Order: sequence, then C-alpha cells, then structure tokens
Amino acid sequence: MQELVNIRLSDDENSIIILDQRLLPNKIEYIELRTAEEMYDAIKLLKVRGAPAIGIFAAYAIFILGREYADYIKSARPTAVNLQWAVDRMVNASDLLAECKAIHQEDITMCRAISENGLKLIKNGDGVLTHCNAGPLATSKYGTGLGPLILGAERNMRFNVFVDETRPLLQGSRITALELINAGLDVTLICDNMANTVMKQGKINAVFVGADRVAANGDVANKIGTSGLAVLAKRYGIPFYVFCPSSTIDMSCKTGSDIVIEERSSDEITRLYFAEPVAPVGVKCFNPAFDVTEAELITAVITEKGTFIKQS
Amino acid sequence: MQELVNIRLSDDENSIIILDQRLLPNKIEYIELRTAEEMYDAIKLLKVRGAPAIGIFAAYAIFILGREYADYIKSARPTAVNLQWAVDRMVNASDLLAECKAIHQEDITMCRAISENGLKLIKNGDGVLTHCNAGPLATSKYGTGLGPLILGAERNMRFNVFVDETRPLLQGSRITALELINAGLDVTLICDNMANTVMKQGKINAVFVGADRVAANGDVANKIGTSGLAVLAKRYGIPFYVFCPSSTIDMSCKTGSDIVIEERSSDEITRLYFAEPVAPVGVKCFNPAFDVTEAELITAVITEKGTFIKQS
Repeated sequence: MQELVNIRLSDDENSIIILDQRLLPNKIEYIELRTAEEMYDAIKLLKVRGAPAIGIFAAYAIFILGREYADYIKSARPTAVNLQWAVDRMVNASDLLAECKAIHQEDITMCRAISENGLKLIKNGDGVLTHCNAGPLATSKYGTGLGPLILGAERNMRFNVFVDETRPLLQGSRITALELINAGLDVTLICDNMANTVMKQGKINAVFVGADRVAANGDVANKIGTSGLAVLAKRYGIPFYVFCPSSTIDMSCKTGSDIVIEERSSDEITRLYFAEPVAPVGVKCFNPAFDVTEAELITAVITEKGTFIKQS
Repeated sequence: MQELVNIRLSDDENSIIILDQRLLPNKIEYIELRTAEEMYDAIKLLKVRGAPAIGIFAAYAIFILGREYADYIKSARPTAVNLQWAVDRMVNASDLLAECKAIHQEDITMCRAISENGLKLIKNGDGVLTHCNAGPLATSKYGTGLGPLILGAERNMRFNVFVDETRPLLQGSRITALELINAGLDVTLICDNMANTVMKQGKINAVFVGADRVAANGDVANKIGTSGLAVLAKRYGIPFYVFCPSSTIDMSCKTGSDIVIEERSSDEITRLYFAEPVAPVGVKCFNPAFDVTEAELITAVITEKGTFIKQS
C-alpha cells in the first residue's frame, strides 16, 4: 500500500514530479517535468487530471517558469476553470513560491474539511456506492466524494465501498478502485448497470458522488450516470450525497437546465481501451460527458463550509 | 446486409453449425460442433446465447448426442429455463430429429407472433430503448424484444432505437446494434448509465426487453441492468414491455426472489475485450449475470399468445 502523490515540487524546487495518470492502474510511474513544453503537455494530454489537481499543478508551473508563461499554461486546457483561476492567482501574487504552496495547502485543508463533514453522514460498516472519481488524485489529498471514506479508513473504520466502473472512460475501475484499495478500504467493483441490484439487496447505505457544478436551485451536474443513480437511490430510500468545494456552487446558474453538457466522441464508447472495436463500424453514438441530477433527488450537498440540506 | 443464421444442423446431421457470437461484430465466423464437450462449452462460453437460441441448440445437441447427455447439457447454464425445457422435450420425444426441428420451427412461428403483438404497442417514429440482445441471433428469426422493430422495418416503419451497450459482455453494442443496423433501423448506441438522460430528454416512448424467466407473479429475470431501467422508466411514465415466449413463464416459480442469479467471473469486468486490464489487479468484483424486475414496474408481458397486463 503506497500513498500515491499526484503532484509535488522536486527537492531542488526546479521541477514538478507527477504521477502519470494515463497509465493507471497498470503502471505507477512518476515523471519529472522541467520545461514549459513538458508542463503544457502534462495538462493537455491528461497526465494530470481533476479540476483542483490541474489548478495546483499550474500554480507550481508558474512558480518554476515565471509569470510570462501564464497565457501559455492557461491555453493547455482552455475550458478548465480551476486552471485559469490558479494561474491568475499566481500572476497577482507577490511571492510565487508561497502562493503555489498556499494553493496546494488550501486544497488539502478544504478536502479535509469536506471529508470531516462527510464522515458524520456514515457509520462504521456502512455500504457506500460511488461513481466516477472524486478522490485524492483529482484533488490534493483525501478528495471530495472519496474523502470521508479515506479519512474513515485512517481512523480504522470499515466501509464496504461499491465502485461503478463509470463508462465510457472507466474512471471508477481505473482510478477510484485503485485509490480506495490503497487506502485500505474494502472495494467491490461493479458495472454501472448493477447499481440497482446492490441497492435492492440492501448493500448500500449511502451514495457518495462529486460535482462539476451545482446550480443555484441545487441541481447538480456531474459525470454521466449520476442522475440515474439518484433516481434508483430514491426508490430504496438511500441518501444521495454530493461532495464539492463551495466554489463549485454557481449562483449565476439558476437551474441544471442552464448547464450545457459536453458531448464527446463516439470512439470513447466503441473503441477506446478495447483490443478490437466493440460495435459495428460507423454506428451512431450518443456520448454526453455529464448529466444533471435534480435537487429533489439529492439528500444533501457537502462542502468545506458544512452540509447543506435543501429545504422543501 | 447479410442474414446471420445463428444455429443449423449440418447437412449430414452429425454436427451443429453455429455463428460464434463472441466474435461479433468484427468477425462473422461459423463453427462446427461435434462433441458433447464442444456443445457444452458453446453454451457455457456464450458462443451461442439467448434463451430461445440455447433451447434450440440444446435440442439439436440431444439429437446428436443422445438422451443420456440431457443432464450434462442442462448443467451448462442453470438459469436458462428454455435450456431445461428444450432438453426435457427431447428426453420425452419419440422421434428426436422431428422434435428438434419442431422446436426450431415453433420458435420462428412464435417470434413472428410476438413481433406482431409487440408492433401494436408502438407507432411510426417512436423512440424505443432496448437492453442486451433479444434479437434474431438470440432466438431463431425476428427475436422477441427486437422482433417488433425488425418487423416494423420490413413494413417501412421508422423507429429511433437506443441501444444500451450492456456491460460487461456488450451484447448491445456487439450484437443488437449489428442486428438492427442490418434490418435498416436508425440506431443510437449509448452506455448503460446514459439511459436516464435519454429518457429525461423525452427521446424514449417505450422500453423493449426480453426475459430469461418470468415468475408466476409477473416478476421478470433478465440481463443485469434491466431492473434499473424499469425503475427509471416508471419515473418518466414510459411503458416498459417484456417480450418472451410463453414457455419463459415459469408457474412453478412463485416470485422473482425464487430465481437464483448466476454470478460470473471478475475478468468479464476487468479484462475481457480490453487491450490492457482496466482495474487494479485482484480487485474484488460483483458480476451478476441477471437481475429481477418486479412485476409492478412492468407495463405488459408480450408472448406469442398475446399481451398480458398485470391486474392490480
């Protein structure tokens, strides 16, 4: 059981050492990045992934490269809000080293607070279902949706964690399962379509997911498949909890229907990861990256500031 | 567009020729089976699959091997009631050749009748969601759940068919998509966890699935993932139709909880089809092959004898 450290500054503070997440779970390989091009590629090619993690990485990059690389680093993933936010913070900082360390430390503190708040929602021995990846590799430490489980494991609590594989990109099987096993948790991997069965069998006491964006009315955009889980959980009276930094709550977005959902390539469904194509050549696919879960289906949203239960 | 023939007796009547369904959609390869072990493996390893097709295949197997192989062949897939039924018919028949041919021909007639009955439930232009494979390759011709769509296409009707990929064995993307495209239908492939999104978007007018076994109270055992779809469909008021031969209804089985669900290998989730493993080595998996959908969630069960709506 080795702790996986996704991002750190080298001892001489001249380079960044990251875990190449594209190789998981088959290879745990750390790579050292020294040049602007290497750092740009790490973001662009998803060697580093997860919104908070990208922000932390970009902050270290600006410390090493200097403020004049701000636009270049930002352009590696133009839609990543945390990337823009972290680089802007660095550009405006007086002490670059202190600022990038602060950005990293603040994320650890925030994830830890989310984890503490979340841990109050479950008890020793509970079964928890999770979807996609809301763990330490996507953040700094602990993670958001996985944070309470990992924190609980540190305190010798036991949970039976059921992990949706999360098609099409398999973040659940590739990353979440790895992180939770590393934390010493009892992990059972299932296909997404098995969630109803484990819920009906009484194996699930709570569902824990992250969020990409929370609208003002409490609707939650998260990885595709989240909303269906919430419908199933409601049928069985299983609480459905959403974990995120308070900055994920977008009060300028009235409801979930204002959130534009990214549609991705058919290849992710028919070819990616597979030894051979698994569908007829040229078949039409619908591949939304996210979905919206209505506020009525969500038991609570848990942030570093506390647990928010919608008043009906 | 070639017609795919899943099962036939060889011309010399000493072997069975089947389409190896594990190789679809990339390879259309027919294999010839001569020994009891080859026939057992064909069922066990899903070279032949689909409840009615397994029954037809088993009948030919008993014709070639003799009645003394009845228990051996039956044991290849204990959940498949059609397998037990077809083998029992063969055991009690006076003319084995006539009986296995009759079982095959009756299935064609039956699928046609099921398709006619099902076609009355939808109208031109409807969106239909299907799961797993209940098509001609799983039966004899037309299929059960896909039969109305294929029959409609023959009559120049148009449907927008959404096909769940159906993890872990991908029968939806590998087989159903192929069969429906072959029949000239408009097919959109989705991952299983996207069903809630297409339902919520109003794209689905009906869900069509097959059945492996129907209990006396109307509970339905079918491919894992079926029951979750039924919960989702109920939320949106989308009718949920189950198509099967009347022989699938097992009056000796009181409710769905009397049905033993086969659990299959972890490798199907973590390795099969993939270029490299997609989960940590040794991760525990839960891989039930089927699930049970409660009668209350099912709008009607459609057989060759008619459409049965549960009286509450």
